[in-house]
Amino acid sequence: MTNLFMFEKPLGMRDTFPDLYEIKDQTKKKMEQAMKLWGYRFIETPSLEYYETVGEASAILDQQLFKLLDQQGHTLVLRPDMTAPIARVAASKLLKEEAPLRLAYSNSVFRAQQREGGRPAEFEQVGIECIGDDSVSADAEVIALMVSVLKEAGLEHFKISIGHIGFVQELFTQIVGTEERADTLRRYLYEKNYVGYRQHVDELALSSIDKERLFRFLQLRGSEDVLGEAHSLLEGGKGLGALEQLKDLWSILKDYEVEKYVKFDLSLVSHMSYYSGILFEVYGENVGFAIGNGGRYNKLLEKFGKNSGATGFGLRLDYVLEAMQVELSSTLQQCVLFSDERRKEAIGLARDLRNEGVEVVLQNWKGVGDVDEFTKGFSNVHFVVGQDRKGGETS
Amino acid sequence: MTNLFMFEKPLGMRDTFPDLYEIKDQTKKKMEQAMKLWGYRFIETPSLEYYETVGEASAILDQQLFKLLDQQGHTLVLRPDMTAPIARVAASKLLKEEAPLRLAYSNSVFRAQQREGGRPAEFEQVGIECIGDDSVSADAEVIALMVSVLKEAGLEHFKISIGHIGFVQELFTQIVGTEERADTLRRYLYEKNYVGYRQHVDELALSSIDKERLFRFLQLRGSEDVLGEAHSLLEGGKGLGALEQLKDLWSILKDYEVEKYVKFDLSLVSHMSYYSGILFEVYGENVGFAIGNGGRYNKLLEKFGKNSGATGFGLRLDYVLEAMQVELSSTLQQCVLFSDERRKEAIGLARDLRNEGVEVVLQNWKGVGDVDEFTKGFSNVHFVVGQDRKGGETS
Repeated sequence: MTNLFMFEKPLGMRDTFPDLYEIKDQTKKKMEQAMKLWGYRFIETPSLEYYETVGEASAILDQQLFKLLDQQGHTLVLRPDMTAPIARVAASKLLKEEAPLRLAYSNSVFRAQQREGGRPAEFEQVGIECIGDDSVSADAEVIALMVSVLKEAGLEHFKISIGHIGFVQELFTQIVGTEERADTLRRYLYEKNYVGYRQHVDELALSSIDKERLFRFLQLRGSEDVLGEAHSLLEGGKGLGALEQLKDLWSILKDYEVEKYVKFDLSLVSHMSYYSGILFEVYGENVGFAIGNGGRYNKLLEKFGKNSGATGFGLRLDYVLEAMQVELSSTLQQCVLFSDERRKEAIGLARDLRNEGVEVVLQNWKGVGDVDEFTKGFSNVHFVVGQDRKGGETS
Repeated sequence: MTNLFMFEKPLGMRDTFPDLYEIKDQTKKKMEQAMKLWGYRFIETPSLEYYETVGEASAILDQQLFKLLDQQGHTLVLRPDMTAPIARVAASKLLKEEAPLRLAYSNSVFRAQQREGGRPAEFEQVGIECIGDDSVSADAEVIALMVSVLKEAGLEHFKISIGHIGFVQELFTQIVGTEERADTLRRYLYEKNYVGYRQHVDELALSSIDKERLFRFLQLRGSEDVLGEAHSLLEGGKGLGALEQLKDLWSILKDYEVEKYVKFDLSLVSHMSYYSGILFEVYGENVGFAIGNGGRYNKLLEKFGKNSGATGFGLRLDYVLEAMQVELSSTLQQCVLFSDERRKEAIGLARDLRNEGVEVVLQNWKGVGDVDEFTKGFSNVHFVVGQDRKGGETS
C-alpha cells in the first residue's frame, strides 16, 4: 500500500486522540451517572438496523442515511438516531402495560455528510427515553433531568427553549387551512429562516389580521407570560390544551428549581416528524447549533404498534464539550525506566505505584531512542538502571 | 408499518438489556482502569474506514466485511478490528521516532455473519497496542497486562497459549520447502484440525524422519522445557532466534509472576497474516472460542510505511463475560411515588436521596396503572401521596 490514500478517512469521520478522549470519557461518565441517579437504566442496540424498520421510523433525511445491502439482499442502515431503535425494543420486549419505562443510552449515531470540512458523520449521543407515561410530569422530569445532566457535565451557561407542536399545528390550521400550507410555514421555522417566513406570510392571500397573527406568533418567547399572549392568537376553544400543558409544565419546572434554565419559544418546531407535543432544544454558549433536543413522540410508538406516551432527550457529546470549552490537560502518568539487570525490581516498583492508583509506564531503557525526549512527557520518572545501585529519580 | 418484519434485527445483531448492560459496563470499566494504570491511553477511531486502507490491511476475510459505497463512490467498511485503524493513526500522526507508544481501545467491531443463530456480527473488543518497541520486554508486558486485565475483570481461571510464528515458518520451510505447502499446513493448525493435519502429513512425499518432525511439532505444549524439544526439531542454526525470544519471554513473565497463567503451544498460528513473531491466545472456562488473542505484528506497520515493532492484544468482552458466568443481579433502585399535591415534597426527597448516591425513580402516581406491579421491582418505595399527611413507606 503506497498510495496517497493510505492515511485517509471517509468524509466526516474523525479520530479521537488520548487527551480529548479522556475529557470526553470523563464528561460522558458524569452525564451517565446523573441519568442513573434519576432511575434511568442503560440499554444498547446494534449499530445496524433494517431500513424498513428503524431507518424509516427515524425521520432522518434519506440522503443522510448510510445504507448497505446484507448478504440476504435486505437494506440495512447505520442507526441515524437512538430514539427509533429504543422505541423498537420498548414496543417489542420491555414495555409492560401501564408501567413507565426509563431507559438511557450513550452511543454513536451516523449521518452521511455531503462535503469536506462539514459536520461529523459519526457522533455520540447521550440521552434518555421515558416511555409509557403520557403526563406532563414526564415532560417536566425529562427537562429537569437534562438540566441536571448538563450541570453534572460541568456546563454552567445553557438555555432550553420549549415549544409545543400541538399549538403550532392548531394555529397554522386555523389560519392557513391546509396541511400543505402549514408544512411550508413549518419548514421556515425549522430552518430558523425568519426572514423567509415573513416574506412568505406577506405573500399569502390572507387578511391583514391573520398575517398579524402569524407575525405575532414569532414573538412568543419568554417566560410564562407568553402563554396569555399565545392564548389571544387562538380562535375558538381549540389548541388551549397545548397551552394548558405548558402552564402545568412551567409550574412543575419551578418545583424542580430549574426555571432559570428554560424559556418558552412557541415557534419551535422540529424536523423529526414523530414529535407530538411538548418539545425543546438546548443551546450552550459558543456553539452555533443546538447541543441537544427532545420532546414527546407518542407517534413513534404508534409506528411500532403501541399506543403509549413517550418523551426523551438526546445530547450531542461533541457539542456539549465544545460549549464547555474545556482545555486539554497534560497527563499525570509516571514512568519507570529500567535496564535488564534490574527488571524484577522495576516490575515491583511499577506494581506498587499502580496499586496506589498511579498510572505508570514501565519501559525498558533499550526500547527508547532519545531518553530525554521520551521522559519529558511524564509527571515523574523513576530510573531503575545500572547494576547494584539505586537509580536516580527526577520529578 | 404493520409487517412481521417490524421488530426484526439484521443477522447477528443484538440488543443489550439493562441487567446485562450494567454488568458489561462495570466489567469493561475495570478492564479499562487496569490498562490505564499500565500507562496505556485510550483512543477512538471511526466505525467506517476506507476499504483500500484499513479494510485490506485488517486481514479479515472479505466475506466477513460489511461494505458500502459512499456518495463519492468509494468503498467503505465497518471496521472489522481495531488493530489496523490504530496502526493507521499511529503511523500517520502519533508515532515519534523511537518513542514507544502505548494505546488502548474499547470499541465495537463488525463481522458479517452467514447464518441465523451464529456468532454476533457486532461485538466489543477491549485491547491495547504497544507500538514502536521491538524488544521481548514489550511482548512480555503485553501478556502480563492481559493477565492483569482479566483478573481485574473478575476472571480467575484462564490460560494463555503462546507460540511464535517465526518458529513455525522456519520449521515448515525446512521440511516442506515451499511457501504454498507451508500455507496448507498452517491452515490446518489455524482451524485446529489436528486430525486433518496428521492425514495431510501422512500423504506428503516426505521421509519418515521429516513426517515424525511434523508430528512431534504438534506436541510442543507446556512450560519452558518444550523449548529444548523444539530446538531438536530444527536443523542448522536457523529458527533459533525465535526460541531464544521465547526463552527470554518466559523469564520476564516469571518476573511478572504470571507464569501460572501461561503455557507454550508452538503449533499456534493465526489467520491474521500480519503477525510476525510471538503470538498468543487466551482461553477461559466454559467458552469454546478464544476470549482474546494478540501478538507481534511488525508487518502491519510496514503496510503503513513505518518500520516499527508493534505488539498488542484484543479481548472479546462478550466471551469474557461468558467465561465469568456472571449472574444478573437485581436493581438497587428506590422509588418515590407521589401525587400532584405533594409534588414539591417528592422532588425534594428524590433530590436528597440522589445526593446520597441512591438511584431514584420519581414517579407520578397518575402515570402508573397497577401500583403493586410497578413498585415490586424496587428495593424501597417511598409513598408521598395524599393531602397534608406523611405518606407510608414500604421496604
